[in-house]
Amino acid sequence: MQINILLYDRMTALDAVGPYEVLSRVPGADVLFVGERAGPVRTDTGHLSLVADASLADAPAADVVLVPGGYAPPLTPGPIHEWLRAADAASTWTTSVCVGSLILGAAGLLEGRRATSHWIALDRLADYGALATEERVVFDGKYVTAAGVSAGIDMALTLLARMTAPEAAMAVQLGIEYDPRPPFEAGSPATAPAEIVAYLRANRDTIVKLPGMS
Amino acid sequence: MQINILLYDRMTALDAVGPYEVLSRVPGADVLFVGERAGPVRTDTGHLSLVADASLADAPAADVVLVPGGYAPPLTPGPIHEWLRAADAASTWTTSVCVGSLILGAAGLLEGRRATSHWIALDRLADYGALATEERVVFDGKYVTAAGVSAGIDMALTLLARMTAPEAAMAVQLGIEYDPRPPFEAGSPATAPAEIVAYLRANRDTIVKLPGMS
Repeated sequence: MQINILLYDRMTALDAVGPYEVLSRVPGADVLFVGERAGPVRTDTGHLSLVADASLADAPAADVVLVPGGYAPPLTPGPIHEWLRAADAASTWTTSVCVGSLILGAAGLLEGRRATSHWIALDRLADYGALATEERVVFDGKYVTAAGVSAGIDMALTLLARMTAPEAAMAVQLGIEYDPRPPFEAGSPATAPAEIVAYLRANRDTIVKLPGMS
Repeated sequence: MQINILLYDRMTALDAVGPYEVLSRVPGADVLFVGERAGPVRTDTGHLSLVADASLADAPAADVVLVPGGYAPPLTPGPIHEWLRAADAASTWTTSVCVGSLILGAAGLLEGRRATSHWIALDRLADYGALATEERVVFDGKYVTAAGVSAGIDMALTLLARMTAPEAAMAVQLGIEYDPRPPFEAGSPATAPAEIVAYLRANRDTIVKLPGMS
């Protein structure tokens, strides 16, 4: 099984590494990180680089293509969109995490499809003809989209169960001890305090200070 | 706030990237990935390199030191242990994810302390005089240890709330949409099917095939 994960400048590391941690544990899976150029790619907060082991041109066809989100997702036509269309034509599953779904949409791949995204960007899916769907993981045919950042872990486990067997996904889930205990009920706009939701909506592009911090 | 995250060969990517994704969202936080040498470090499944931006010798003192787990954690005396003892002497919080706690223990930092680890390695904490504690996140003074792999996200959010304010941690939790929906009740040995637990115990070092896969 070949799994290609796209890297690009200012992407969100956990969007890629969550699903990677799940899918790379499948024996025989070959996970390849692919960038416009091979080499280090800086992630969104500026403190971590992930290494692309192949350029777009050198990446082999993949069974699973995964597109992470980021602070400045590539939404204008260019080599990444061309690569995505070709990768999608050969894939069994085309997947995204967070605003990675906007990239899939901008590449023309989500027309008329149900899809999700980071909650703060969900309304932008309609710009690309996709049907915004407020769920954590959305399957529509071969297209699988996950909500914001951490949702990639849930997406990858769900996908793994479909691709192989529920027992395999359970073994990976136990292997990464994914028995989450979030310290607050604040992980979605439906459960977080209204003032926290309002704060993030008002500061969606540049959060320079977190609530409660002096 | 200076946060240093240790990288070493065959470490587990999500152990580092989960907490990084939380802590790097704190405005003003400087997160530095530190390796024995600066440069790419290969993670455990062999498909991803994270980049160490500083060597042990070049890393500044940090408020938070974080030690991830891995397939071959450095448990014998050497430069990493020496660095950890010096880093711990200067830190406000010394933390670990997964079998990172065994590294802290091997460096002599958990003597008589309550600590946790990956469920499959919990019994090994006693080798280092630590008191194995079956909880997802364990605080003992300035020492904070998390259970396996994905538990680093819960640890980092809990730590962030203590370091700043609960509202700040809630904002980050909402920012990474951490509203987990694991597809199975399989994330801990207490909830996973007994045969899955037995399978992982029997294959703890080399999993060449997952249950349910042909």
